[in-house]
Amino acid sequence: MIIIGLDPGLTCTGWGIVAKSGSRLSHVANGQIRTDAKAGMAERLVELDAALTDVILHHRPDSGAVEEVFVNVNPQSTLKLGQARGVAMLSIARAGLPVAEYSTKVIKKALVGTGGADKKQIQHMLKVLLPGVKLAGEDASDALAVAITHANMLGSHR
Amino acid sequence: MIIIGLDPGLTCTGWGIVAKSGSRLSHVANGQIRTDAKAGMAERLVELDAALTDVILHHRPDSGAVEEVFVNVNPQSTLKLGQARGVAMLSIARAGLPVAEYSTKVIKKALVGTGGADKKQIQHMLKVLLPGVKLAGEDASDALAVAITHANMLGSHR
Repeated sequence: MIIIGLDPGLTCTGWGIVAKSGSRLSHVANGQIRTDAKAGMAERLVELDAALTDVILHHRPDSGAVEEVFVNVNPQSTLKLGQARGVAMLSIARAGLPVAEYSTKVIKKALVGTGGADKKQIQHMLKVLLPGVKLAGEDASDALAVAITHANMLGSHR
Repeated sequence: MIIIGLDPGLTCTGWGIVAKSGSRLSHVANGQIRTDAKAGMAERLVELDAALTDVILHHRPDSGAVEEVFVNVNPQSTLKLGQARGVAMLSIARAGLPVAEYSTKVIKKALVGTGGADKKQIQHMLKVLLPGVKLAGEDASDALAVAITHANMLGSHR
């Protein structure tokens, strides 16, 4: 089973893909999609949609998950994040895949065993769980963490 | 020239299409897209995207516009609105159309002549400007108002 995780953002969207075979997990790919800050909003959403659609067509995931967002105190930022997040969720769901959502706390707990883990602990665990993985950046790391959380949850629901 | 206006929302998205020929404006169609409140977020975004894509394929607009949103005081509502708005803007822009944005004040001023006009005045002006129009609802009316504003702006920029 191929699972995609996303950490959506207008400036940078992280994506991470893992494969699950029985209880065995392996890294497939991860990356980050940046949109042109000088372009208009609609154009940036098209860029994001096109890049994510490419990733999905290339890796053909069976299931997807996104991180539940920490809602920003600035309403304009929240609106922008929402717009990018809507497009990201659509790109997965339009391919006919279910989209799960996990809170940061649940993701940290799934990876490190405690909801209060920091970014370094998460990245350390990614390297332990996915030997040889090269992380494209912080957003890609977060996306892989979502994908692993979803892989574990899928397993435990069976 | 065919112009589409949108008033995006997760529960209900209004759309309105007008045709402009010289300085003459005429009504083409208007409607509202409701998504299933019992469905998951990703599924609702797919519903919205599919319905808007149908409208765009059917009417083949040349240009589009959305209303700039009044950002809600509730961050979760703002995030939801952003998600629907991102999908709505994408559906227009993916068809290769430019997407303009107008504030409520500019729209009211374009239609009624004052930024403080109320909904009834807007709906009255829609009926004057687009004789015989049947309004599908409040969101469709707002969408037609955005389309007319955009039609006027396009004219005055030439």
